[in-house]
Amino acid sequence: MKISELSERSGVPVATVKFYIREGMLPRGEAVSTTRAEYGDEHLARLKLIAALADVRGLPLSRVRDVLALIDAPDDDPIATLGRAVGALPPYVGAGRDDYPLARAAIAELGLTYDPDFTAVAQLDEALRALEAAGLDAAPPVLRRYSGAMRQIAAEELAPMTGMTRAEAVPYAVLGTALYEPVMLALRRLAHHHLLVEGGTPKG
Amino acid sequence: MKISELSERSGVPVATVKFYIREGMLPRGEAVSTTRAEYGDEHLARLKLIAALADVRGLPLSRVRDVLALIDAPDDDPIATLGRAVGALPPYVGAGRDDYPLARAAIAELGLTYDPDFTAVAQLDEALRALEAAGLDAAPPVLRRYSGAMRQIAAEELAPMTGMTRAEAVPYAVLGTALYEPVMLALRRLAHHHLLVEGGTPKG
Repeated sequence: MKISELSERSGVPVATVKFYIREGMLPRGEAVSTTRAEYGDEHLARLKLIAALADVRGLPLSRVRDVLALIDAPDDDPIATLGRAVGALPPYVGAGRDDYPLARAAIAELGLTYDPDFTAVAQLDEALRALEAAGLDAAPPVLRRYSGAMRQIAAEELAPMTGMTRAEAVPYAVLGTALYEPVMLALRRLAHHHLLVEGGTPKG
Repeated sequence: MKISELSERSGVPVATVKFYIREGMLPRGEAVSTTRAEYGDEHLARLKLIAALADVRGLPLSRVRDVLALIDAPDDDPIATLGRAVGALPPYVGAGRDDYPLARAAIAELGLTYDPDFTAVAQLDEALRALEAAGLDAAPPVLRRYSGAMRQIAAEELAPMTGMTRAEAVPYAVLGTALYEPVMLALRRLAHHHLLVEGGTPKG
């Protein structure tokens, strides 16, 4: 297809398509004359993916580039790949500390793995600090409510990966981390709404 | 306490404290002389809350102001309050459409309540569009994985509200929506990490 059709089918303006090509985020089309290049379905898929990460997920362009780089050239170690994917996603916390005491205590309590180099540890530490600052309950019984559900979800998410090749597993893990998060948060908000609508409201 | 002590104990610079007072986000201290005001524990708590929303949760200042306004003067209708709280949180989607077909179909399938005026409906629609664009599974069995867990969590979160007054319930609901989300996301990422570390890795 021509670049105009690629633009129309992806919903991405031609100027933006050209920008992604210049930035190396989208491969060039196949030159069919000095003035025209031909684009295929793989270009369309890639553009939709960039739009999902940039527009829908709201990642800054530098982070979209990080995610694409992970998919194009994954680390040999899947744990390192997961670590880099999580580092490309918000919340962007000040990492690089030696120790995260709030997260360390919670992780020990919840039976998870404490690795201060894995960005989600710093993210949990910040999140727990915010709970404390706001006077919300961050004690183990409350944390277990979330941890139990997340462990169940994570196990179901990882299960299909045992049948995948590395080339399939990396995009699945990286994109799944990025793109099921907004689904989950919207569904929690919808569940609150549904329960309030159905069940009446607390007394004032 | 003096403003200098308030600054030190909250970790918020004096100039920023003065800015929050000018913006009406933090009440003035009690004037004890023409040049000095006295601040109390309620000022400290409020500053910590602002810092949690702005710095840790990363909300833009205009959205922090929205959340504070909800807490200070909640709507009489708790469903409306929840709706406004959710509208103050990311992802900031283009709302105001008449219909959200992807979300409508999913919500019907999941047995939730479809109300196009509730922002989380637009948020779910966008999130499902991103899944489709990235070629990830958005079919009912996968959505049920998240929905079931979120419904369980939402029910446990709402349970304590039946014993609360309106003045207690609103901050609990508004801040809980905002501040347990990062905890949940960090725990999902940590569960992936833990399962990969424990269970070995898919074959490449």
